[in-house]
Amino acid sequence: MAKKIGILTGGGDAPGLNAVIRGIVINGIRLGYEIHGFIDGWAGVLNSNIKPLTLADVEDIHREGGTIIGTSRTPIFPKKEGQKDRSAEAVASLKKLGLYALIAIGGEDTLGEANRLYNDGKGEFPNIVGVPKTIDNDLNGTDYTFGFNTSVNIAMEALDRLHTTTKSHHRVMIVEIMGRNAGWITLEAGMAGGAHIILIPEVKFNFDDICKIVKERYESGKSYTIIAVAEGCKEVDATKPSETDPFGHEKLGGVGASIEKRLEKWLTENMKKPYPEFKFEARSMALGHLQRGGAPTAYDRILGARLGLNAIKLVHEGKFGHMVSLRGTDIVAVTLQEAVGTLKTVPTERYEEALVFLGLK
Amino acid sequence: MAKKIGILTGGGDAPGLNAVIRGIVINGIRLGYEIHGFIDGWAGVLNSNIKPLTLADVEDIHREGGTIIGTSRTPIFPKKEGQKDRSAEAVASLKKLGLYALIAIGGEDTLGEANRLYNDGKGEFPNIVGVPKTIDNDLNGTDYTFGFNTSVNIAMEALDRLHTTTKSHHRVMIVEIMGRNAGWITLEAGMAGGAHIILIPEVKFNFDDICKIVKERYESGKSYTIIAVAEGCKEVDATKPSETDPFGHEKLGGVGASIEKRLEKWLTENMKKPYPEFKFEARSMALGHLQRGGAPTAYDRILGARLGLNAIKLVHEGKFGHMVSLRGTDIVAVTLQEAVGTLKTVPTERYEEALVFLGLK
Amino acid sequence: MAKKIGILTGGGDAPGLNAVIRGIVINGIRLGYEIHGFIDGWAGVLNSNIKPLTLADVEDIHREGGTIIGTSRTPIFPKKEGQKDRSAEAVASLKKLGLYALIAIGGEDTLGEANRLYNDGKGEFPNIVGVPKTIDNDLNGTDYTFGFNTSVNIAMEALDRLHTTTKSHHRVMIVEIMGRNAGWITLEAGMAGGAHIILIPEVKFNFDDICKIVKERYESGKSYTIIAVAEGCKEVDATKPSETDPFGHEKLGGVGASIEKRLEKWLTENMKKPYPEFKFEARSMALGHLQRGGAPTAYDRILGARLGLNAIKLVHEGKFGHMVSLRGTDIVAVTLQEAVGTLKTVPTERYEEALVFLGLK
Amino acid sequence: MAKKIGILTGGGDAPGLNAVIRGIVINGIRLGYEIHGFIDGWAGVLNSNIKPLTLADVEDIHREGGTIIGTSRTPIFPKKEGQKDRSAEAVASLKKLGLYALIAIGGEDTLGEANRLYNDGKGEFPNIVGVPKTIDNDLNGTDYTFGFNTSVNIAMEALDRLHTTTKSHHRVMIVEIMGRNAGWITLEAGMAGGAHIILIPEVKFNFDDICKIVKERYESGKSYTIIAVAEGCKEVDATKPSETDPFGHEKLGGVGASIEKRLEKWLTENMKKPYPEFKFEARSMALGHLQRGGAPTAYDRILGARLGLNAIKLVHEGKFGHMVSLRGTDIVAVTLQEAVGTLKTVPTERYEEALVFLGLK
Repeated sequence: MAKKIGILTGGGDAPGLNAVIRGIVINGIRLGYEIHGFIDGWAGVLNSNIKPLTLADVEDIHREGGTIIGTSRTPIFPKKEGQKDRSAEAVASLKKLGLYALIAIGGEDTLGEANRLYNDGKGEFPNIVGVPKTIDNDLNGTDYTFGFNTSVNIAMEALDRLHTTTKSHHRVMIVEIMGRNAGWITLEAGMAGGAHIILIPEVKFNFDDICKIVKERYESGKSYTIIAVAEGCKEVDATKPSETDPFGHEKLGGVGASIEKRLEKWLTENMKKPYPEFKFEARSMALGHLQRGGAPTAYDRILGARLGLNAIKLVHEGKFGHMVSLRGTDIVAVTLQEAVGTLKTVPTERYEEALVFLGLK
Repeated sequence: MAKKIGILTGGGDAPGLNAVIRGIVINGIRLGYEIHGFIDGWAGVLNSNIKPLTLADVEDIHREGGTIIGTSRTPIFPKKEGQKDRSAEAVASLKKLGLYALIAIGGEDTLGEANRLYNDGKGEFPNIVGVPKTIDNDLNGTDYTFGFNTSVNIAMEALDRLHTTTKSHHRVMIVEIMGRNAGWITLEAGMAGGAHIILIPEVKFNFDDICKIVKERYESGKSYTIIAVAEGCKEVDATKPSETDPFGHEKLGGVGASIEKRLEKWLTENMKKPYPEFKFEARSMALGHLQRGGAPTAYDRILGARLGLNAIKLVHEGKFGHMVSLRGTDIVAVTLQEAVGTLKTVPTERYEEALVFLGLK
Repeated sequence: MAKKIGILTGGGDAPGLNAVIRGIVINGIRLGYEIHGFIDGWAGVLNSNIKPLTLADVEDIHREGGTIIGTSRTPIFPKKEGQKDRSAEAVASLKKLGLYALIAIGGEDTLGEANRLYNDGKGEFPNIVGVPKTIDNDLNGTDYTFGFNTSVNIAMEALDRLHTTTKSHHRVMIVEIMGRNAGWITLEAGMAGGAHIILIPEVKFNFDDICKIVKERYESGKSYTIIAVAEGCKEVDATKPSETDPFGHEKLGGVGASIEKRLEKWLTENMKKPYPEFKFEARSMALGHLQRGGAPTAYDRILGARLGLNAIKLVHEGKFGHMVSLRGTDIVAVTLQEAVGTLKTVPTERYEEALVFLGLK
Repeated sequence: MAKKIGILTGGGDAPGLNAVIRGIVINGIRLGYEIHGFIDGWAGVLNSNIKPLTLADVEDIHREGGTIIGTSRTPIFPKKEGQKDRSAEAVASLKKLGLYALIAIGGEDTLGEANRLYNDGKGEFPNIVGVPKTIDNDLNGTDYTFGFNTSVNIAMEALDRLHTTTKSHHRVMIVEIMGRNAGWITLEAGMAGGAHIILIPEVKFNFDDICKIVKERYESGKSYTIIAVAEGCKEVDATKPSETDPFGHEKLGGVGASIEKRLEKWLTENMKKPYPEFKFEARSMALGHLQRGGAPTAYDRILGARLGLNAIKLVHEGKFGHMVSLRGTDIVAVTLQEAVGTLKTVPTERYEEALVFLGLK
């Protein structure tokens, strides 16, 4: 009788997830396994909510965003004070369902829990394999994660689009892009989309610097500026004691709107108008959920497909406690441990490359 | 010596503006005119800020969004209490510059001012022709305005994209779309993009109805709902005396965010969870400036090109006080008077067509 | 018991077909009908090959190109010598299946046959309604057909794309576009995509004129030329007696390749090189099946949706022998007779508009 | 006085070229150099045809395909019998122009010539640096080349589009994709675009195998098949002695059309029709120049930008005889020698991954 493998997708969805699922199912069935999908991540494990996945279920799904088995942020280990440790329940469910192995597709949270289950639950349910997933590209242990390429292209296209309207109105346009802790999407979309200022969480920004750049652009005849800002950006507080960091501490997002208001005020008060009726205007927008949506790019479809195909191969080879990972052009296995714990943020030299293009270095 | 024609673009930019400018310049030069562009709409007229436009200036510009001559919302007639009537200044500038005629490309505001200048300033500067422009498609006297088709496609693509992520998370996604007074973009993008609820300014909405539809969808196994809402939507206040219309009266925008919060609360309090860990979630986003940006669709490039070509023809034929307009597949001339005064809102029967597709009629 | 309505799609597929089918099914079920789809056009009628269409079957299909019920070019009336008249078989099948009415979605051929069945078969099976479909936009009785807008955008994007590569290599690029008898797609895509020469079947072209335009462009420093040519274009034969019209008479297609070879030869023999190593090069390509494929634009989704919704309404109102049609912004009913017999070709004044932009008029 | 650096782009254009040029110019000026562009590759060198490149010249050009300095296939070393060795002329021109260094951006040919110039001309003009460019991704010494990602996405979108029309007509669609010697674009576009058969130059194909797969698909109810075939594919000749390899030996291209005709014939003769009127149909198309055109993807813009920035850095560091290269996520320097001589073809294990998805392994 065929061994049963469970798969789950956890956390925010990323374009390419369905390509991973398809890869696991096609190669899994070929290798003689039965593949079952847990509905909505760990919640599906806790509720033993599972459905078999056939070749027909995964036909052509690599073209679609999202995940056909649903996702959630339900944890099995306590993340906050007062939360219950439900990992034993999870293990009990996995065993009751008669699973041979579990493939967890997710980011820092999901893989972290998979790793704890693998380590803490050793002897109980050790047959765990991971697939790295984060649209933010901030996971260690892999060159790139799927979803990131699609997201960068979507944000780049938005920046491309905004050039003409921003220029026609002589405005400053601030575009808030995903990235709580790492600025990868903002860095790459900003470079590719020709933003004039790029702000990432890794480097605290100085509001005065922004004003200076925008001013210099206006004065040199470039009457518009596009600013790409990651949602997790923070301001240098030392220089602004009384109004330190008026965004970001309470909630994510809002950094764009904050810069908008202050910048429009600053420009109006500090800049000479080209003609009396002219109004200095700043506008902001957040790309939000658009960055997750829609058809994956070729890059993400292929990366997803290869990761899926190789994840089930890891199961087949008994390489548990590992995840599949991209290194150069190869798919390799690394331990789950390598991927979790710290985030892969933008290194200084990569940010400095962008600064060269912005004329800031 | 060639007669000088001035052109200006006023109000928010719309994809297709550059195709209009190109059409005027190419056909204008062919007919023996010199074409000059006012910088930033009426502000350019008031400041006699003008530049000649050559064939080289307009080469391939029909592919780009925005307007190469800039735009502004500077009025020449008082719009609010305390504003000065500057129309005499405008006429003086037009005459001083030695212009034979002016082509005003704009919406309700710009064309309204052009019409007043034509009527009030008769004898002073009557040689005025208009080109209708509004991304909202709410201008009378023409079947469609350019920019609208591009905007609908952008909003449709956003809705298409959001389906997979919304579905994967079993959410309600509320997408706020342009349209202060008319719901054209929301209606067409909502129908084309498969929204499950479409709210337009023409028909006040009832929050309870939204809850009911979302509930029924969840109960019938459709665990996600996409709501397309025009920024200018208003709530039926009679039914909600204590929290009537908490958005919209003070400022535009915000209707999406308002529905989001109340709907998530309502769902959480009134719906049975499919499993204990499940969270009912609503999210909202505003498409904002993305809807104006980027390369125009073929429809808008061709409509813009034909309008431009025919606008200068109206000048050539001395048909002043008129604007060019689309009727069926023809470009015709209508009086500026026909276009201004009232807005072209979505007729009941068009909204009812949408309701059939939503299963609501 | 609910009345049964059959629908069929015939001829080449066009983006928007599924929106029509969805419109018929959603509104049909609402009005109390059972909707059944014939598989592969008239072939499905002849073979009584039919399947019921439910709301679930048509969910979100308006986003997809093609037709979920298949299509074919199988005729029921003889089109060529030796073909059998099978219309009596078709009527027998329609009656045997107990259909109340038939909605035929198709072009000149399919609607022509529907019209003959309606007229000749009166008393036998008169309950026939049509929906106009042709990607070529050459059907009479309607302002536009669905699929055309998508096709124009695809061809425009191809022309947009080809600009940079053509320019970098200083080439002439000839792009062959759909259109056997009418040049609508080529005209609009050519205008929107900035082609420098536009050739349509309605106006025979002169090879010498093409050479002259390309030559003048090279000489004025524009070292590249893009030619949009409809597949059905014919050459003015009088001027080229020995090599008259070496394409087109035997088979469609090939006109692009023919121009390519002769033009490269002509340029090489007649033009001065800018430097010794320079090679005059012409390249051609045919867009082919790409023009039919993929997700419909908003325009085609909405036009299709409205046509479908109104087609079943015609059935409901007993308006047989008619088809739904777009007039301005309204969907109206016209007789099938109006649509068939002659094609709607590009009128001279529309082609002349294009010539103005090409600097040729 | 600033040192003068010349740059040239040779061979077929690839999306991303302008990003490279922009990177060189921005970083070059920052580092104190003057950057000059040779017009049309080596032809520009031979004719001392050069123009200075300023920051204004490269503003926002990274968004455009093609190359702003033109390209050609003019060789300086003899490639065929009878060609003259013009390398001494090239060196003389470089010296006469007072260039400090040359950056050659190109593929196997251009970099091969740069390498010979570097080696053979040592002492004469040794200050040469390379940037790898080939849309085919078949250059050694780098993980990926720019242009490839854009090309794969264009081909994938074409395959995506063709699914619905192919399915609606129950056809076999054969899509010919770039790749003379290496199947990278076909492999990745085929996987991403869901082709059912993928043929690459690295593995000779067997016509009987194709027939068998198509037949099995029809028999299992999948009434359509999409075949992605690289233009350089060859047939296994051993099995077909009398009609061996009827394409490919004389000219590139044509393999798709050849399969089309034979496959349609084979299907008609060997398959049972689902109903009497059914016709087995195969169609083919070549994507051709579309694959090079248009706006680069984010990936190619960023790769191009980083390569350009680092190429001028190699000049600055005196690392001549080297080229910039992508290794994992880093830009490194490798010798020109490493890149030329042999092509990087698709390894067996990568093709086998695709075969798993096609159900063929």
